[in-house]
Formats: sequence, C-alpha cells, structure tokens
Amino acid sequence: MSNMSFSLEELAELANGKLTGDAKLLISGFAPLETAKKGDISFLVKVGQVDKLDDFAGSAVIVPKAIKESSVSLIRVDDPYLASAMIHNLLLKKPFRAKGVHQQAWIGKDTSVPEQISVAPFVSIGERVKLGERISIESGVVVGDDVEIGNDTILKANVTVAEACRIGSRVIIASGAVIGSDGYGYATDKNGFHTKRPQVGIVQIDDDVEIGANCCVDRAAYGVTHIKSGTKIDNLVQIAHNVVVGENSLIVSQVGISGSTTLGRNVVLGGQVGVTGHITLEDGVMVGAQSGVHNNQKAGSQVGGSPALPIKKYVRAAIQYGKLPEMSKDIRRLKKQMAALTATEEEHKGSTE
Amino acid sequence: MSNMSFSLEELAELANGKLTGDAKLLISGFAPLETAKKGDISFLVKVGQVDKLDDFAGSAVIVPKAIKESSVSLIRVDDPYLASAMIHNLLLKKPFRAKGVHQQAWIGKDTSVPEQISVAPFVSIGERVKLGERISIESGVVVGDDVEIGNDTILKANVTVAEACRIGSRVIIASGAVIGSDGYGYATDKNGFHTKRPQVGIVQIDDDVEIGANCCVDRAAYGVTHIKSGTKIDNLVQIAHNVVVGENSLIVSQVGISGSTTLGRNVVLGGQVGVTGHITLEDGVMVGAQSGVHNNQKAGSQVGGSPALPIKKYVRAAIQYGKLPEMSKDIRRLKKQMAALTATEEEHKGSTE
Amino acid sequence: MSNMSFSLEELAELANGKLTGDAKLLISGFAPLETAKKGDISFLVKVGQVDKLDDFAGSAVIVPKAIKESSVSLIRVDDPYLASAMIHNLLLKKPFRAKGVHQQAWIGKDTSVPEQISVAPFVSIGERVKLGERISIESGVVVGDDVEIGNDTILKANVTVAEACRIGSRVIIASGAVIGSDGYGYATDKNGFHTKRPQVGIVQIDDDVEIGANCCVDRAAYGVTHIKSGTKIDNLVQIAHNVVVGENSLIVSQVGISGSTTLGRNVVLGGQVGVTGHITLEDGVMVGAQSGVHNNQKAGSQVGGSPALPIKKYVRAAIQYGKLPEMSKDIRRLKKQMAALTATEEEHKGSTE
Repeated sequence: MSNMSFSLEELAELANGKLTGDAKLLISGFAPLETAKKGDISFLVKVGQVDKLDDFAGSAVIVPKAIKESSVSLIRVDDPYLASAMIHNLLLKKPFRAKGVHQQAWIGKDTSVPEQISVAPFVSIGERVKLGERISIESGVVVGDDVEIGNDTILKANVTVAEACRIGSRVIIASGAVIGSDGYGYATDKNGFHTKRPQVGIVQIDDDVEIGANCCVDRAAYGVTHIKSGTKIDNLVQIAHNVVVGENSLIVSQVGISGSTTLGRNVVLGGQVGVTGHITLEDGVMVGAQSGVHNNQKAGSQVGGSPALPIKKYVRAAIQYGKLPEMSKDIRRLKKQMAALTATEEEHKGSTE
Repeated sequence: MSNMSFSLEELAELANGKLTGDAKLLISGFAPLETAKKGDISFLVKVGQVDKLDDFAGSAVIVPKAIKESSVSLIRVDDPYLASAMIHNLLLKKPFRAKGVHQQAWIGKDTSVPEQISVAPFVSIGERVKLGERISIESGVVVGDDVEIGNDTILKANVTVAEACRIGSRVIIASGAVIGSDGYGYATDKNGFHTKRPQVGIVQIDDDVEIGANCCVDRAAYGVTHIKSGTKIDNLVQIAHNVVVGENSLIVSQVGISGSTTLGRNVVLGGQVGVTGHITLEDGVMVGAQSGVHNNQKAGSQVGGSPALPIKKYVRAAIQYGKLPEMSKDIRRLKKQMAALTATEEEHKGSTE
Repeated sequence: MSNMSFSLEELAELANGKLTGDAKLLISGFAPLETAKKGDISFLVKVGQVDKLDDFAGSAVIVPKAIKESSVSLIRVDDPYLASAMIHNLLLKKPFRAKGVHQQAWIGKDTSVPEQISVAPFVSIGERVKLGERISIESGVVVGDDVEIGNDTILKANVTVAEACRIGSRVIIASGAVIGSDGYGYATDKNGFHTKRPQVGIVQIDDDVEIGANCCVDRAAYGVTHIKSGTKIDNLVQIAHNVVVGENSLIVSQVGISGSTTLGRNVVLGGQVGVTGHITLEDGVMVGAQSGVHNNQKAGSQVGGSPALPIKKYVRAAIQYGKLPEMSKDIRRLKKQMAALTATEEEHKGSTE
C-alpha cells in the first residue's frame, strides 16, 4: 500500500508551480492540512486560511501564489485545487498489475484477451468482444457480444455493458451502471396498446469519460447515443436514446436527459435536472439543480427553475414566491380601495354636475 | 445476422396498408430514410416531408395515406409510426434459439428447467421456481425462491427478481432492475426508533410489460404490488409497495410512485414525476414531467406542476412565474399611488366640508 | 414455512399491552383484519373501525387502548401500528440457518469466514475482509478488499460494497445498492478539462441501518461518509461523499444529498428531495417531497418547496400559485383604473385651481 516518493521539485514541476523551501524533500503521501504527517503534502485553497500553516505537521503545502512564504515548504500555484488533484493522482499512481482472467470468469468465443488485463470472478464477457490493454473488470460485470473497450478502462463491480456498445480509453464506469439498455420507444395503436419500436443503435462512450453508479445510458433507436470525451457523470443519471453529450460536460446526480437531445461542450447540469427531448443546449450552458429545461439554450446561458428561466430572472422570481400570499392580500385590498374610490369619484361627479 | 425476407405484399397486409408499387418486391431490412439501402424499407411520418422520397436509395417506404403515389414503392397507412414499428419487429424476429443452462449457472432444487430456455453464466435461480418456455436469462441475474416466470420473457443482465414474485409472459426486464425489494415501512416508537414492518407480499408483473434499467418495484406489505399487462416503464423508476399500475400505462424515467397508490389504464406519467401514496389516478390521466401529484385524479385529467394543477391552469401560472418581480413592483407602486390618492381624497373631503 | 407459536399472554407482554380475552390462546400467524384465519393475530389502528371486529375470523386483534372490549381476544396498546410490527416480527423470526459458503462463491485470501454464515453462488468477497456472525450474502454480491461487516447483516442480491467500507450489525442492504462508489469530485483547468480528485475515504454504515434498492452511497474524498445507526433509506437515493446522516433518520426514495452535508437525528426527507452541499439540517428537520433545500435548517424545522420555505409559508404560497394569471389580470386592471383616476385627479386639480 506504500506510495512512490517524489521530490518536491518534481511535484512543483508537474503542477507548474513555484517552489519555496527544500527542493529535495521527499513526498510520499497526500492528506488534508489537519491530518498530514511527515512525508505528506497538503493543500490550502484560500489565502485567508494561511494561519493553518502554523500547526502543520506534514512536509509541504500547495498554496495560492499570493502566499509568498512560510516556515513550511510550499508549492505556489495559480489553482491549488487543481494542482493538488494532479499531485495526489501522481502519488497514488501504481503500475497496472495484470491479474489475468480469473478461472471463474467466462469469456465468449472469438474474444481474444490481452495479457495485460484483470478480469475478476463471475465476470461474463460475450463473443467477438474487442479488449484494449490494461483493462480492469471487477466481479459481476457483464459485457455483451461485439462490445469494444479501449485501454486502461475500468468497469467496477456489477456494471452491465450491453451488446455492440463502444467504450473508449481511460473510461471509468461505476458499479451498477447500465450502458446500452433499450431506449424507451413505443408506437400506440387506437386501442391504447403499445408496440415496442426496435432499438437497434448503440452507445458510444469516448475517452476519459466517467459514469456514476447505477446510471443508465440507453442505446440509440438507430445510430448512436454518444457521450463525448472528458465528460463526467454522477450517480443515478438517466441518458435516453440518441442523446449526445459534448466534451467535458458535468452532469450531476439524478439528472434525466430525454431522447435525441444534444448537449454541447462543458455543459453543466445540476442535480435532479430534467431536460426534455429533441432540444439543444449549446456549449457552456449551466442549469441549476432541480430545473426543468424545455427549450433550446444558447451557448453560455445560465438557467434555473422548472420550467427554466434565465438564472437571474429565476432567482428574483423565486424570492417573490414566498410572498405570494401577501401579494394576493395586497391586491384584494387595492381592489376594495379602488372600488371605494371609484364610487366616491362617481359621487363627486354627481355632486359637481 | 441476416434478417428474413418478406414481400412488400406481406408487409402491407401486416400493417393493414394499401400497397402502391411492386407487390412481389422482397424486403429484408429496415432503416431510416437517409441511410436505407436496396432491400430496406423505411418510413416517413409527415406528409410535408414527401420530397425526401426523391433521394431515397432503399426499396420501399411506409407513408401516410395522404401520400398517394411516388416513384418509390409505398405502403400507405393510417399511422406510419405504428406500422413501421410492426414491420421492423417482424423483420428482426428470429426463432428462439435455446442455449440451455450454462454450466456456470446455478439452479436450486425443485426447480425444473424446460428444454427451450437460455440461462447464461453466473445466473442464480432459486428453489421451486416455475419457468415457462423460451425464457432468456442473461448473466448475473438472480431469481429468488418460488418465483414464477411466463413464456418468452427476457431478464437482462444483472436483474434481481426476489422470492415469490410472479412475472408474466413476453415481459422484458432491463438490466439492474430490482423486482420484489422490501417496501419502505416502519413503525416509530416514542424514542424515535424505527421498527421494520414485515413486507410479506409479492410483486406481480403481467404479460407484455417492460421494465426499464435500474428500476425498483417493491413487494407489497401484504398482498400484491401489481403492474398490469402492456404497461411500459422507463429507467430508474420507483414503484412502492402495494401500488397498482393499470394496463398499458406509460411511466417515463425517474418517476416515483408512493405506497398503495392506484393507477388506471393508459395513464401517462412524464419524467421525474412524483405521486403521493394512497391516491387514485383514473384511466387516461396524463401528468407533465417533474410534477407532484397529491390528490386523486379523475379519468382523463391532464395535470402539471408541483403541487399539480389542471394542465392549462398550470401552464398559464408557469408563464406568470417569471413576472413575479414585476408584479411585486407594480403592487408596491399601486399601494403608494393609492395612499397618495386616499390622502388627496381626505383633503378633498376636508376642503368640501 | 410454518411460524413458531406464542401465547397471547407472551405477545401482550412483548407489546407492553393489556390483554382482554384468552391469555393461553396460541398465535402462529399475522394477517390483515380481512384475511386473518384461526391462529392469526391482526391489528386495527383507528378506534372508529371497531365494527370491523364483528366479521373477524382470526384469533386475536391488537387494538388501541380506547377499545375496551370485544367478543374477540384483544391486546390493547398505546400504538397498535408499532405493536403489530413488533409482534409480526416475532412471529416471522426464524433461527439463522447457516448455509455456509457456496462452492461457486469466491473468497479472497486472508479473509476468514465464520461457520455461521450464508454465502450464495457467484458472491465475490475480497481480501482481508472481516465478517461477523450470521451474515447472509445473496447471489451476485461483490464485497471489496478490506471491508468489515458486523453480525446479522443481510446483503441482498447484486449489492456492491466497495473496498474498505465498514458495515455495522443488523444492517440490511437491498438489491443493487452500491456502497462506496467514488465521490463526484473534479478540478477543472483553464481549458475546461476535468481532473479527477482522488476519493480515498470510505463509507461507514452503523448498526440497524436499512439501505434501499439501487441506492448509491459514495465514499468520502477523505475520511468517512457516515450513515448513523437506525437510519432507514428508501430506494434510488443518492448520498454524496462526506455526507453524514444522523441516527434514526428517514430518507424516502429518490432523494439526493450533495457532498459534505450533515443531517442530524430523526431527520425526515420526503421523496425526490434535493439537499445542496455543505449545509446542516439539524435534529428532527422535516422536508416535504420534491423540495430543494439550499440552506442550513434549525432543529425541528419543517420546510417545503424548491427553494424550500418554512412549510406553512410554502403551503400558503403554493395555493396562490395557480391564481397567478388572475392576480396578473387584477394588477393590469388596477393599473388602468389607477391611471384613469390619476388623470381625473389632475383634471380635478385643474378645475379647482
């Protein structure tokens, strides 16, 4: 379980940071400020928390550039949050250790298995599957026929990847996720009976995508449901058939995206958002949690509410919502006053005529 | 992978359509208009898109009856969407090929397995299970003791059907779905401790039902949680204990239905809808996405919003929501003006007395 | 399948109730009033339903204390709902029957397995796992390395417990639930690429917790995501990294709790509620279904709506929501009337000057 060691100099270079302190200091662990021990590097995001360094028991700290010096060795960077992620990942990195195919796994015919792979017990891999190098497949995973999986991809326990879907490299699919379930498509006759429309497309997941636990990504009716590279999807998200999610988007937990909707790059959907079908959310659109998006959204739009409004408008409206009873009362009083005034006015008219 | 071939005449008859063109033409595939090749049939839903037929490279097209003729062979029908689903299903239909029980599957005692069945590796089937003909059970499925499953039913990878539940014929249960989990029922004592109420009922799923990936259908506390025939349920839906869903209902993804609620026939619940417990939604009720339904709904009602209102009322209210800040400002101005006017009025009175 | 028998006297003592009728009567079953047979005990919650006892075909009924006597043997208690749960659980209780480890299960090295355990086919248990007594692990469950599980805990089919997580005693985890998936944490660079932040903490689930089907509980970034004793979680709930849920809380289905949020004891979250990250809901907070909670909540608060308001305020506002179009119309009319009045007023002034 012991990590590799790196000199502070090496870590500073990785993070493109300025080093203050002992360049040769060896770092082998990463821990929060409060729990760091000798050999650990830690990080601090806010300049205002610089006092925390006084009690620091670790070896070095990644800090914002505005912190110029300290009794502690520092790596000073533009973005300590990002730098710490990069350095922590490096410290945790281990060479892939192939465990091979467990004797209690099942591999279908015409599937050739590279030597550099780990396939756990009770994994079922179908026929004609194409497997890259250094793939790790945990117990209970089911991979259908004709699936393709790229290098260094991880399928966690109890994942299902159904037939013919294509998974890229360095993809992580969390436990219980289902890739390639049938899209929800029916044609209804005059008697109200529903005939299933065949779902003959696939799911394609590009490189560096992460899919959360118990997510569902439905295969396309025809063609491809497509999750593009670098996109990160949280748990329990529903992606319907023929959806396209652009590069580096963030989709927070329990979101539902309806069929044939297209998301651009770097779209951010907050938790429990619903997006209707057949619309487009262009690059960089941000949607607040629990919103319902029913219309196309221009690049960079920020929206909230259900149905969604421009975010500022939504926030102002939401503030008023709690005041509705008061507003209603005010209106009733105004109407009464108006009626009284108008009556007086009529009198006036009468009296002056 | 090659499909069977059918004459255009046979397909027209299946779809109850009028044939225009070559009755003996052989069709073996189905594809969208844009990608159809020789031997493929395609479909077109809107009369206004008739120009698309000019570039058509396939063999025949299913069209609305209003399109009378074309250089392409046509099947003219009332509902091209429905007809295309029926024809596509026929073209994809394959005779059931029993793979038998895989040597790495487990079958409990007193469960007899028909010859016409496919049970994949790492499937566990309990004791005293009753299995129909031509059932397909994919890897990782767990079927509890005393379960009953009808003919031609498909359990996709990693499905769980817990003890004593009853699944009909031609049912499709998508990967990761859990049928027969315990209902959520507790009795709370004075100290706030919760005692589990035993959940001793079952789930019954009738013929031709489809249940989406990672859905949960809880067993009844007593009696039956019942999904009636022809109902189609999308992914990640929660059906609580003792719920009854009527025939041919459509329940879109991420819906939650609370305990002991009853849905009639052909009810439609949009995505992410929540329905409270112990209420009834009669036949044909339609609920808009993300709504919250707290009260009984009469047959044919259409509702939206949370809490749900009649749909037209909801839509009108939702439009006004964004104008709340403006309304609030108007009211404040009116109150000021009213105060001023009333003061003047008092003056008037004073001056005229 | 036959239950044990208990005398009415024994059951009355368990439920701390007053016995009216035959103390030696033997009870072996539990059923609803309508379906009870000889030997069954049943229960009745509302005094107003006392007439139902007239047609009762079972042996005894648990009733509220206000019901003083009947032709039927009674156990009179403060809380028939709670008493019936306790008695029903007793009647269903069976001694643990260890089935041992199935020959088609896999146990990793340095995991020692107690004699009193049931491990079904196709269960995979990792290395160095610590297992208590009388644990029941159903088919398809995957337990990662270094996990700890307490006594009498049940892992239902297809559950995943990832590495190093700690599960207490008498815990029930329903099918498809994922314990210890990675938290959703990324650092984004200037080009919009997301770097995964390592998630090196664990999930700790304390005694007597129940977790619903297809739930996800993410491991902490550092430290512990903690579900404290006695808490009951319904299906399809998302618990993000570093969340703490206090003792005896109730979390209804499809709730999402964002990262680092803390819930006190006996908190109740209705179905489909969303709770934002880094906030605290103190002891006894109750949140209405589909609400969105964005701020800290004091002990005992009851809130509803999205964004959440004090419940009474929310209910009053929600009632007005449907009247928005009418309010808008009223305001427009008032503005017109006001304009007319002001004009007249000006005239008045003109005419009196």
